[in-house]
Amino acid sequence: VIVYGRNAVREALRGRRAASAGEILAIDSLAREPWLRDHRVRVATAEVIERACGSREHQGICVEVAGYPYVSPGELLAAKTPFIVALDEVQDPQNLGAIARTAECVGASGVVICERRAAAVTAAVCRSSAGAVEHLRIARAGNLADFLLQAREAGCWSYGAAISEQAVDYTTPDYRGGVVVVFGAEGRGLRRRVAECCDQLVAMPLRGRIGSLNVNAAAGALLYEVLHRRAALDSAP
Amino acid sequence: VIVYGRNAVREALRGRRAASAGEILAIDSLAREPWLRDHRVRVATAEVIERACGSREHQGICVEVAGYPYVSPGELLAAKTPFIVALDEVQDPQNLGAIARTAECVGASGVVICERRAAAVTAAVCRSSAGAVEHLRIARAGNLADFLLQAREAGCWSYGAAISEQAVDYTTPDYRGGVVVVFGAEGRGLRRRVAECCDQLVAMPLRGRIGSLNVNAAAGALLYEVLHRRAALDSAP
Repeated sequence: VIVYGRNAVREALRGRRAASAGEILAIDSLAREPWLRDHRVRVATAEVIERACGSREHQGICVEVAGYPYVSPGELLAAKTPFIVALDEVQDPQNLGAIARTAECVGASGVVICERRAAAVTAAVCRSSAGAVEHLRIARAGNLADFLLQAREAGCWSYGAAISEQAVDYTTPDYRGGVVVVFGAEGRGLRRRVAECCDQLVAMPLRGRIGSLNVNAAAGALLYEVLHRRAALDSAP
Repeated sequence: VIVYGRNAVREALRGRRAASAGEILAIDSLAREPWLRDHRVRVATAEVIERACGSREHQGICVEVAGYPYVSPGELLAAKTPFIVALDEVQDPQNLGAIARTAECVGASGVVICERRAAAVTAAVCRSSAGAVEHLRIARAGNLADFLLQAREAGCWSYGAAISEQAVDYTTPDYRGGVVVVFGAEGRGLRRRVAECCDQLVAMPLRGRIGSLNVNAAAGALLYEVLHRRAALDSAP
């Protein structure tokens, strides 16, 4: 597959599929940058690069690499104390990319996405994640509710972000031990069975007149709260 | 100006410029929805709506309203204990919209944007904010660094989100009193003089290999931390 965009290509060249990288196509001004020094680069026009990657969003660079190396959901659960982000049918590649980037930044063990009716890790997602997907483990679940039950078996506690009567404030749990944090698609939220398979629903306070946050902002707020609380537990005597 | 998109139109009809709304153009299936019952609606085809608003992102509805009612930066500083979000040359309408939505959700007193080299509150911003801009006070500053000095005069403390040696962890300050939280443009961060005019730089921890969060996620994390800490202070004895 072709990965394009400056950050996406840079991370692909130092991530899990770096060994599979072929020749890089880059516009003249980029081709001479130091970070490309040890790679095979062919100078090309923007038009040639656009044709090669099928997108205008290439920022003057693209490279062919192996298909995205998904892991199995079970592998994510095998971490010592898992911190997993699960996405329930998130279909917008921009949202998937942005949340993957945040997940990578908080040091999550990985991300679980749905196999069907959901964005996969396409070149557009690589780009909108700023290349974070190259360093992150992403698994596809055939049935997300079943994955949450499997996570419970493995000793994890699942927290679903939801606007619901049953939800507690997102700062209430201490997020200790293995955790799965579940986000629904923008506008639609968690599907009913997925919400039912969460051990706890959590909500962000809303102090204005708008009824919901966008999912990227919610992920930023909630995942950083989880990181902060877990770090506090780690450093406690 | 024309506002388009389902949420953007709905909030425009109940926000600060509601009184200026003209006839609504909507596709047949939307036109009969209950929230439009008390408004003048003309049924139109998607093509007519696209021509009226000049965008494909209309979701079947648009309305003409008065130009965006900016306030002055001084008005924002006149709040009892201001909680202001300032954006340093954020040029992407999607980012401006998303951050405005988060600012509205945390109950910020308002947002300050730059007059030049920055996105203004266009129809695209209304849409990407899900209409939050209709309920939010937004001011334009000719010089953002000068605004921060003016805010200091008014007793506010400015926190700049930055990846910098001088930055403290974002959970360190208690964010009491009047605060301005400043974000830079994605990829470029705060300009030097703007950073110098902040009283404190704050940073999000980064536990992965990617060097920065996207600005929407950073705003979600930081603005919710500010809300949480201020709420804790308010409820303290």
